[in-house]
Amino acid sequence: MSKLRLKISMSLDGFVAGPDQSVKDPLGVGGEQLHEWVFPLAAWREVHGQEGGEVNASSAVVEESLVNVGATIMGRNMFGGHPGPWNAQKPWNGWWGANPPFHHPVFVLTHHARAPLEMEGGTTFTFVTDGIQSALEQGRRAAAGKDVTLTGGAKAAQQYLAAGLVDEMEISLSPILLGAGERLFEGVGTDLHGLRPVRTVAAPGVTHLKFAR
Amino acid sequence: MSKLRLKISMSLDGFVAGPDQSVKDPLGVGGEQLHEWVFPLAAWREVHGQEGGEVNASSAVVEESLVNVGATIMGRNMFGGHPGPWNAQKPWNGWWGANPPFHHPVFVLTHHARAPLEMEGGTTFTFVTDGIQSALEQGRRAAAGKDVTLTGGAKAAQQYLAAGLVDEMEISLSPILLGAGERLFEGVGTDLHGLRPVRTVAAPGVTHLKFAR
Repeated sequence: MSKLRLKISMSLDGFVAGPDQSVKDPLGVGGEQLHEWVFPLAAWREVHGQEGGEVNASSAVVEESLVNVGATIMGRNMFGGHPGPWNAQKPWNGWWGANPPFHHPVFVLTHHARAPLEMEGGTTFTFVTDGIQSALEQGRRAAAGKDVTLTGGAKAAQQYLAAGLVDEMEISLSPILLGAGERLFEGVGTDLHGLRPVRTVAAPGVTHLKFAR
Repeated sequence: MSKLRLKISMSLDGFVAGPDQSVKDPLGVGGEQLHEWVFPLAAWREVHGQEGGEVNASSAVVEESLVNVGATIMGRNMFGGHPGPWNAQKPWNGWWGANPPFHHPVFVLTHHARAPLEMEGGTTFTFVTDGIQSALEQGRRAAAGKDVTLTGGAKAAQQYLAAGLVDEMEISLSPILLGAGERLFEGVGTDLHGLRPVRTVAAPGVTHLKFAR
């Protein structure tokens, strides 16, 4: 059975992005700190075409997150660029350059229709305007039996969590306060739909909390 | 040097109490779940005059939290009873019965003056109306070189955190959502004043995150 696996970094005060997100601050003011644990890792650098890097207790978590994944779902805000209708003159093709690190189909939740965008290295961005169920069905079909990763942002995660569609959740808890921004669990209610802790990894600058059902 | 040590249980969505706190629901609706990890423990039951109980990875955390503590600070809401001026006709003497589990001086932050309340077993409640600095000074003096524990609730913790007065912080993260209530870090800002993760313990139903500076 193909699982939907949410993976996201959250601050100690519950934010997955800081305030005032923009092209300059894609994760909001201070939001970059959420991911400081991952940038030095060899496991992360390799995926992003860089050499060297560290191996620590987070390495196995990052490696595990990449295994058996056949598609990714993300929100429009995480794909980024600008709010509202797509700019045909200056098309925004994501944060990741010509060869994004996904290497499989990516489904972007948006209110604004756009033709699929084929990048180098096997990544195709498909823009889904008819909601989270449709994106999940398309993701599952594209994954062909493998799992589907949900990478955020907050609003995409909230919708899937509230609908009880998340089968696994890895929260990488960063020991910082953002004070404002987008909260992961805002409006999700009190029901984790059977998600229970299954594994905790304490690593430099982060604690990984894995939930499954 | 006597340390101020915050210990508190927090939900995955950042709440230390649920909504609608009352005498019936002292921790707010659903808030009792925050402490489900502690009630079965022999280390907790012993302190509360009960026999038996479990030993698991939380036991050492509970035992450690009781070592070298000479005084406790808490907010009025945690002491409980009712809001506003004290009721002289029906005095509220706390949740803990005639022999509270503290066995040392306890300082209660309140806006309403009241004479000290001496209980059995060495616990005296002193009501502090002139703010967190005064309560900390009184707590340190009473602790006579030992540490002072800050047990919440949210508003008391927020004031000490924002003022940079917390030397150690043990957050017992409960894998539940409360959806509403009192957030630990509401209004605290982005500065942890040098508090950094020093130890993580994964235990049944809880992950203990210890910070120190």
